[in-house]
Amino acid sequence: MTQTNRQILLVEKPTGKLLPQNFKMAEAAIPEPKDGEVLLRVLYISLDAANRAWMQGATYRAAVEANTVMAGGAIAEVVKSNAPGFTPGDLVFGDTGWQDYAVVRAKHLVKVPRIDPITNLLSVYGVAGLTAYFGLLNVGKPKADETVVVSAAAGSVGSFVGQIAKIKGCRVVGIAGGKEKCNWLVSELGFDAAVDYKSEPVFKALKAAAPNGIDVYFDNVGGDIFEACLPQMNQHGRISCCGAVSAYDGTPPAHGPRGVPGLIVVKRLIVQGFIFTDFNDQRDAAMADLQSWVKAGKIKVQEDIINGLENTPNALIGLLAGENRGKRMVKV
Amino acid sequence: MTQTNRQILLVEKPTGKLLPQNFKMAEAAIPEPKDGEVLLRVLYISLDAANRAWMQGATYRAAVEANTVMAGGAIAEVVKSNAPGFTPGDLVFGDTGWQDYAVVRAKHLVKVPRIDPITNLLSVYGVAGLTAYFGLLNVGKPKADETVVVSAAAGSVGSFVGQIAKIKGCRVVGIAGGKEKCNWLVSELGFDAAVDYKSEPVFKALKAAAPNGIDVYFDNVGGDIFEACLPQMNQHGRISCCGAVSAYDGTPPAHGPRGVPGLIVVKRLIVQGFIFTDFNDQRDAAMADLQSWVKAGKIKVQEDIINGLENTPNALIGLLAGENRGKRMVKV
Repeated sequence: MTQTNRQILLVEKPTGKLLPQNFKMAEAAIPEPKDGEVLLRVLYISLDAANRAWMQGATYRAAVEANTVMAGGAIAEVVKSNAPGFTPGDLVFGDTGWQDYAVVRAKHLVKVPRIDPITNLLSVYGVAGLTAYFGLLNVGKPKADETVVVSAAAGSVGSFVGQIAKIKGCRVVGIAGGKEKCNWLVSELGFDAAVDYKSEPVFKALKAAAPNGIDVYFDNVGGDIFEACLPQMNQHGRISCCGAVSAYDGTPPAHGPRGVPGLIVVKRLIVQGFIFTDFNDQRDAAMADLQSWVKAGKIKVQEDIINGLENTPNALIGLLAGENRGKRMVKV
Repeated sequence: MTQTNRQILLVEKPTGKLLPQNFKMAEAAIPEPKDGEVLLRVLYISLDAANRAWMQGATYRAAVEANTVMAGGAIAEVVKSNAPGFTPGDLVFGDTGWQDYAVVRAKHLVKVPRIDPITNLLSVYGVAGLTAYFGLLNVGKPKADETVVVSAAAGSVGSFVGQIAKIKGCRVVGIAGGKEKCNWLVSELGFDAAVDYKSEPVFKALKAAAPNGIDVYFDNVGGDIFEACLPQMNQHGRISCCGAVSAYDGTPPAHGPRGVPGLIVVKRLIVQGFIFTDFNDQRDAAMADLQSWVKAGKIKVQEDIINGLENTPNALIGLLAGENRGKRMVKV
């Protein structure tokens, strides 16, 4: 156990693309938990496109401010507890920030079981898996034989969305960057087709890959890809809005996708934003489904684990550039 | 009864703003109904912003083609019937087009009761009233004390939306063009506030008029006003997409509203397009509600009736410019 607490601070809010120099490493004393608080040792930090959005301003949470420890969800172990219900050795999920140790109010923590491997708590049994599950099934509501299109399909959420849609009997098309990812989606994860937005015009390639139109579009990216999908939506289609990564890293786009709201009217679409906690009341059922699908080999869990707290900034920068396949996290 | 059938043809599809010269008057023989068809005398033609959208391409109906009778819904009287269930004197609603007489297949007609005044069949008991009712209550789902904002608020649909929202106990803000319309919304129809988009910056004026944010935005216009409302939506707000009149008359806008889909995610919004026929199964209940509200004086019905078939083109051009107050129609 180190005797100091290494912390990664956001030294300034990025104005354009996120850069390594927006962060710096600092050291502090290991903090003491006060009443109702718990001292945690951080094990695995989750990296998510949303981390970048938090730097832009208030979202579903307060903005991350300059000169503070960078925020982020993580799996952590209780070291010291001043709160009932938490004892040393307990495993929890919470927003610890990017550091070795964190003191967090117990009411903001969720206790999680010590499964093997525990990294699955950040991928299929964590935010990524639950986001895919609820965003697809509760928001997108696909029916068997419908066509589901998912963007950032090789990312953590997207790879689960496609596999769950296959389980539900849908035709699944993934949009991803690069031939390698696209091949992986089809040959390893069982997608019916994949569109490589880096090498082919998305609108045309989608038209070929989804000849019956799109019933559910699971949107992780916004921007041009949202605009390419919109006119191909079928009547009464659903767009599940999970994120808009195209707008996070850099200056926000000057305008939104063409066809909003006209095509939403004409096609009678439902376009719905969500975060997975909106469906907390159905979490147990979701978890049971995910577990049975993983056990049955119907969901393959791809994780992209980077070692060392000091590499967290570059891990996020790389994620925003789309270099990961599956769920990216940092082993502290 | 005239012996010829006057018809207004769309001679060419408008490329920019709709102009009188896009239409011409023609004369034809009164047609004979074939098997399963009905000959109708057109009484009142409904004018709707959607008429202009039909010229742009396929919507929820086929596009209106050049050199054909301009399409349009109307209240008409059966003159001659070759279809079971229809007899001379029956009143119907259907797409007769802009002409004195029309032959229509009986299965495309809806029989309507001969109420007084029958013009109410095109306003509160017709497309406008049902669109407002279903779009507000089934799509927007406002709760008491929530804030409802409606654009094109002095138009046929908008004026009903605001009044129904008041009946449901909401705070109601209308967006309309011109002081006179805005005064009318507040003093005559009971809106809580009105924003004049012609004389004040919409974003700022809305902020003042809806200090608790917007829970339901009923969108008739799209474009800049949609963009001004979006950042003011409350968490879990609903946008009921009824039309996008800002995009109908002229070349379609280059881009959509800023903040789509990012703000839809962050605010967990539901943005839903609809047309009133999506809720046909609930039509009787809707009609009963509308009747009781009109009878109780809770809904004031404003109609804007223009005389003479020959004035239909200018009536539509004026409607697209926002010159009407309440439901515009032409008495043939």
